[in-house]
Amino acid sequence: MGSSFLIYFTIVTVEARAAPKREAILEATIRVLRNRGLSGLKVEEVAREAEVGKGTVYLYFRHKQDLLKALVEHHTLSYYRKVEEAINRCGTFRERLAEVLRLRVAWVEEWRGLWAAVAREAQPKDTTGWLKGMHEHYQHLLEKLVQEGKARGEVRAELDTCLTAASIAALACNPQLEFPREAYLEHLLEVLLKGVAL
Amino acid sequence: MGSSFLIYFTIVTVEARAAPKREAILEATIRVLRNRGLSGLKVEEVAREAEVGKGTVYLYFRHKQDLLKALVEHHTLSYYRKVEEAINRCGTFRERLAEVLRLRVAWVEEWRGLWAAVAREAQPKDTTGWLKGMHEHYQHLLEKLVQEGKARGEVRAELDTCLTAASIAALACNPQLEFPREAYLEHLLEVLLKGVAL
Repeated sequence: MGSSFLIYFTIVTVEARAAPKREAILEATIRVLRNRGLSGLKVEEVAREAEVGKGTVYLYFRHKQDLLKALVEHHTLSYYRKVEEAINRCGTFRERLAEVLRLRVAWVEEWRGLWAAVAREAQPKDTTGWLKGMHEHYQHLLEKLVQEGKARGEVRAELDTCLTAASIAALACNPQLEFPREAYLEHLLEVLLKGVAL
Repeated sequence: MGSSFLIYFTIVTVEARAAPKREAILEATIRVLRNRGLSGLKVEEVAREAEVGKGTVYLYFRHKQDLLKALVEHHTLSYYRKVEEAINRCGTFRERLAEVLRLRVAWVEEWRGLWAAVAREAQPKDTTGWLKGMHEHYQHLLEKLVQEGKARGEVRAELDTCLTAASIAALACNPQLEFPREAYLEHLLEVLLKGVAL
């Protein structure tokens, strides 16, 4: 828990330093990734796509791994911000969940399955710990949504909040394998068969 | 539809040629991928892990891309075979769905998010068409499960079979973006809120 917040605030600090050119390079990187795949991602290509010199890329990012790490953090953080906004908005559980699903599908479409592979290249040592730290923030946001849904009488009170949030996260997402496998599978099945609404 | 079956039978033909050594190389490849990521995957590493000479790898696979393509097809086909067995087994909808979810989670865990990225490296041209062809087979299996669930009176008859199958596939999986976006999101929400059971 502590480490997840530490990671979150580290990302925020990194983001605060963002310059428009830095952001343009990151946007160019994801376009190159989508067109050429991970093995086709060269700093030269990114520079060309961003319409800057190769040296400018190295001004912001020491090396390719640094660029990939910033890319994952930048996009993940901006995605979480949108999810947080959707969850903090006034509205029924249904309306807010609909928005969360919409954001999720758009996110998956943006990355086209490359997110986990890029994350692994970006931080080969302890990829799991790094991603888990970021993912915990998403899990907490969904727990808040479920909790409020219960308080509003829109979600079945007998459902475990944590596992229900994880089941929502499992839609178009890697499952959270840190949960006890049997309980997690049982819960996914329960949600799929009976749903979460009252 | 026709093309999906063509692809399916092509895979079967490729599989039929499988030799034990070929399979050992493919198993070694996925271990190297998990340990070193996509950019760390070298034919030398695969040969070492499989305990064969580098020349032996080239005897079965012309080049790295060929190896990756065989890897994706081999594992995907063997996964579909297990899903097909689970769906053809006698039992309630609930029991068979539980087994499908179990297989799905094991599959995601095996690939750790690398599947889509590997597939893109394996077939950079028309990755989507190739994957869609394979995925259609999975979608058909799930439609059969839903259809039989309806026939047994275990699944709500008013739910669209195709979109319900796609919603099940969306658990721990990329969403099927070929469906009309609005209908798909609406259906995901319906399943999540009310479930599929009668």
